[in-house]
Amino acid sequence: MKSRRDGSRILIRLETGEEVLSSLAAVAERHGLGGGWFNGIGAARDVELGYYDLERRDYDRTRVEGEVEIASAAGPLSILDGKPHIHLHAVVSDRQCVPRAGHLFRAVAAATVEFVLLAAERPIERTRDEATGLNLWRV
Amino acid sequence: MKSRRDGSRILIRLETGEEVLSSLAAVAERHGLGGGWFNGIGAARDVELGYYDLERRDYDRTRVEGEVEIASAAGPLSILDGKPHIHLHAVVSDRQCVPRAGHLFRAVAAATVEFVLLAAERPIERTRDEATGLNLWRV
Amino acid sequence: MKSRRDGSRILIRLETGEEVLSSLAAVAERHGLGGGWFNGIGAARDVELGYYDLERRDYDRTRVEGEVEIASAAGPLSILDGKPHIHLHAVVSDRQCVPRAGHLFRAVAAATVEFVLLAAERPIERTRDEATGLNLWRV
Repeated sequence: MKSRRDGSRILIRLETGEEVLSSLAAVAERHGLGGGWFNGIGAARDVELGYYDLERRDYDRTRVEGEVEIASAAGPLSILDGKPHIHLHAVVSDRQCVPRAGHLFRAVAAATVEFVLLAAERPIERTRDEATGLNLWRV
Repeated sequence: MKSRRDGSRILIRLETGEEVLSSLAAVAERHGLGGGWFNGIGAARDVELGYYDLERRDYDRTRVEGEVEIASAAGPLSILDGKPHIHLHAVVSDRQCVPRAGHLFRAVAAATVEFVLLAAERPIERTRDEATGLNLWRV
Repeated sequence: MKSRRDGSRILIRLETGEEVLSSLAAVAERHGLGGGWFNGIGAARDVELGYYDLERRDYDRTRVEGEVEIASAAGPLSILDGKPHIHLHAVVSDRQCVPRAGHLFRAVAAATVEFVLLAAERPIERTRDEATGLNLWRV
């Protein structure tokens, strides 16, 4: 992936075959960032979405077949156990422009994926929350 | 809810049971802001979405059952009649990752909701527009 | 359309009947910008969405009937052949809050459309990429 700082933002382009979440974590490390907010669009394959079942404290997972447009991807960069943690929710759409949406577990860049990262001045820590079973922002 | 300023942005986390729109208005008041742009994700229940009928000058409303992921929520903070006004559109998705979308009338945070608010330097006034029946930005 | 600079951001409101992509390009020219990131919501008609077929190197196009809410629109401003280039992906929803999503080819503002443009300090060039057939960011 390519990235460059522009003021308090990082411009990011992923290339064909790069996994989105791990690539964005690598961008955060490259720029020494532990907090921020991502917004992105593009095209992807091997997409896995999730829905959090608060009662069961686990995700239902949905594999999306084929190549899709990423109509929207957004969410925070934070630090969990000393490492960059990317929490993205996404809307993806198929050839008929029919969308699926949810928590993004995995996506591999198809033609291209473009992101902006709003870089926070200070890290955002994320820690385990016993009430929800999730790792939550310590804003 | 928790919030903290980070440069020209406010990081926000809502907690289980907090209504999204009123909580974001409270964040704006806490930080003395009358303008900006929200972007958020999370999980919610008691979601009510809307579609504006320009001819009838009123919204059709759709209640979304159960808990949903907020795949995207975005829109401006402005000032209407001297108070913070939150205009959000959202995409929410169910257990099968099937989305619904539109104007967000109401949502109650489930496990967690995370937002960034891009804080404007000056307030954005919103006033009644007779042509559309809506309260529009005076950009 | 109306627009005003607020720090490193441009606040934008389109008026009924204005085409979204050409209006946003005009905003970029008015403010002398060659790079940035858009995020917007609103209502529109005459919407045309697309899905990029990487094998065929062309888009499948879907016309969306009637007026719709723009639940999300996002993407970069860059420079292609010396002119502002707007790449937007969008999620739009109908009266029943059922969404369609994809690459945005065209949309005409209905009641109103509100955008923020995060203005980059330096232009972002976009050039032809032979591998994908697309014009890609030179980040």
